[in-house]
Amino acid sequence: MKKHNFSAGPCILPKEVLLKASEAVMDFNGSGLSLIEISHRSKDFVAVMENARSLALELLDLKDKGYTALFLQGGASLEFLMVAYNLLETKAGYLNTGTWSDKAIKEAKLFGEVIEVGSSKDENFKYIPKGYTVPSGLDYLHITSNNTIFGTQFKKFPKTDCPLICDMSSDIFSRTMDFSQFDLIYAGAQKNMGPAGTTLVIVKDDILGKVSRKVPSMLNYQTHIAKDSMFNTPSVFAVYTSMLTLEWLKNLGGITAIEEVNEKKARLLYSEIDLNPVFEGYANIEDRSLMNATFNITDEVLKTTFDNMLKEAGINGLNGHRSVGGYRASMYNALSLESVGVLVDVMSEMERKG
Amino acid sequence: MKKHNFSAGPCILPKEVLLKASEAVMDFNGSGLSLIEISHRSKDFVAVMENARSLALELLDLKDKGYTALFLQGGASLEFLMVAYNLLETKAGYLNTGTWSDKAIKEAKLFGEVIEVGSSKDENFKYIPKGYTVPSGLDYLHITSNNTIFGTQFKKFPKTDCPLICDMSSDIFSRTMDFSQFDLIYAGAQKNMGPAGTTLVIVKDDILGKVSRKVPSMLNYQTHIAKDSMFNTPSVFAVYTSMLTLEWLKNLGGITAIEEVNEKKARLLYSEIDLNPVFEGYANIEDRSLMNATFNITDEVLKTTFDNMLKEAGINGLNGHRSVGGYRASMYNALSLESVGVLVDVMSEMERKG
Ligand SMILES: Cc1ncc(COP(=O)(O)O)c(C=O)c1O
Ligand SMILES: Cc1ncc(COP(=O)(O)O)c(C=O)c1O
Ligand SMILES: [Mg+2]
Ligand SMILES: [Mg+2]
Ligand SMILES: [Mg+2]
Ligand SMILES: [Mg+2]
Repeated sequence: MKKHNFSAGPCILPKEVLLKASEAVMDFNGSGLSLIEISHRSKDFVAVMENARSLALELLDLKDKGYTALFLQGGASLEFLMVAYNLLETKAGYLNTGTWSDKAIKEAKLFGEVIEVGSSKDENFKYIPKGYTVPSGLDYLHITSNNTIFGTQFKKFPKTDCPLICDMSSDIFSRTMDFSQFDLIYAGAQKNMGPAGTTLVIVKDDILGKVSRKVPSMLNYQTHIAKDSMFNTPSVFAVYTSMLTLEWLKNLGGITAIEEVNEKKARLLYSEIDLNPVFEGYANIEDRSLMNATFNITDEVLKTTFDNMLKEAGINGLNGHRSVGGYRASMYNALSLESVGVLVDVMSEMERKG
Repeated sequence: MKKHNFSAGPCILPKEVLLKASEAVMDFNGSGLSLIEISHRSKDFVAVMENARSLALELLDLKDKGYTALFLQGGASLEFLMVAYNLLETKAGYLNTGTWSDKAIKEAKLFGEVIEVGSSKDENFKYIPKGYTVPSGLDYLHITSNNTIFGTQFKKFPKTDCPLICDMSSDIFSRTMDFSQFDLIYAGAQKNMGPAGTTLVIVKDDILGKVSRKVPSMLNYQTHIAKDSMFNTPSVFAVYTSMLTLEWLKNLGGITAIEEVNEKKARLLYSEIDLNPVFEGYANIEDRSLMNATFNITDEVLKTTFDNMLKEAGINGLNGHRSVGGYRASMYNALSLESVGVLVDVMSEMERKG
């Protein structure tokens, strides 16, 4: 049975990417050796790393604008720490839009004062804070562009005097915008880019080297920049597979092209959620995420029936996160409009039955 | 042409492991989904993580002895930092046996006093220091069991009052010993265990929680222990492939069985190096590594001929590291005796020609 994979991450990747990645594990570039058994310093793998880094900048239109792309290990969670370690001298601002911002705040507090410039905690993060003022004198302001768990997404970004840092783990490469408004972007690969095991960091070089503390080598962005993202052995398979996804996206027409599909998918699902009385959306309408749609079933009695129908339709990964409950449909770049169509059909069918 | 892969890491893995890993990228456990597109919290992947952690302890005979096995990100290089962050309160001892110990020392110095208890720097690390005294009052003593670059290996380990920490990146699972003499063992996966992208850490729980500094979440071993090595998204593919290699080793008969093969391989190669006048060993004989054999060609004029012969024989990864020069044959667990035979044949042929 065909599967429709709505998993929140790790999540669906393009079929052709999976195929190429699988083949490279047996034979990389016709070398007779596996991708994962050659030196990361070999010509062939250095080319992969360079290509991946270059494609990331190109797709975000950040080439020749003072940015460096890095593929690091540790996940977005290690970036919570690295951002503060490298940039927080005295005080930093954070917008608290959910679990992930909260964790970022926790790590930053080890290094300096943290000002929660805005928060939507009062309504369990179902909206994006607005109308806040960014105080002056911050070392940086940190935001989470898309809140994977709660299904909210920034549509407009704050203007700041200080560097703007963005955790884009769950919506990078999904929509067009001026990426140069950010000074540092990071994203765990395992949503729109690749398998778990590598994190993309895009950093504007001139914001670095300003804190007075000594930053350990592995946590120092400057170490990794100086070594072209090969200070130590990178997560070879995850970087290669990410490169394949970025190539796939480029061939498709880049972010402009995928954004159109992403908007169609989201429109289709959200209108079903709104029109169908069996379901109701969780996040405020104006802040809804194009990537993760959170919704509830209005009558809990119908849950078992609905869950069985999902299973029969081959729909996977629709359970909501425990901090929200209900359902969450993650519609990352590689998910087809067809899969969303299948989900919407099941929801309509549920309405007829319910 | 059949390849003989002597790469120093990432390096050769068992063919059946590569095959299973490649298949799982297309379809994991017959689920119709790829290993890399399912949630790391799914039942199937949690089982992988648990199996990998359990196999690691079992193979080292460390079950029920107060140890926890973790699969972290960041490589062995991040462990240089984490060890010091978690354990160095006042002063620690390090045996300096080469590049990797040196880097570990550098990170430790950020957190306290470092005493170089012994060093073989005076002879470019061609031997393992002996006859040193471990001072009392150390927070721990750190050693590197096998020095990948220089081809030396500890045969006997120091007795200490303090915790003994070992970087076993390049010889873990390769030889029998009493692993309970160590309080913390770490190893980047990409030698004897799996692909790059995950690091195995085996830690005795009772040495933790004793430093006065606040350890950031991601760098704190206790965080990862409390979350069963799933505090954040692990490097799924690398953990799965490591699990496959550990299963392969267990089915083979464990470390006792592989040690026998490793000894045969090393004996075969080192006797050729010694008996063949065209080559000479780099490391002191008594400290020679069973994993990485470093050697030079006695007449540089023969180098081009030898390199061509290696190529023709399908031998890969034999170049020495730049800090030693010459050649390095890495003979990790998955390398067959046959491959070493092919190399030795080429070396004999060189003698006849030279
Ligand atoms: C927005 C966001 N930030 C950070 C993380 C944490 O990422 P990782 O598990 O790679 O540390 C996630 C994980 O889902 C996320 O969605
Ligand atoms: C003994 C030893 N320690 C540490 C490292 C560094 O490992 P990583 O590249 O995973 O940080 C290596 C790499 O080859 C090594 O051989
Ligand atoms: Mg969130
Ligand atoms: Mg509705
Ligand atoms: Mg070394
Ligand atoms: Mg000789």
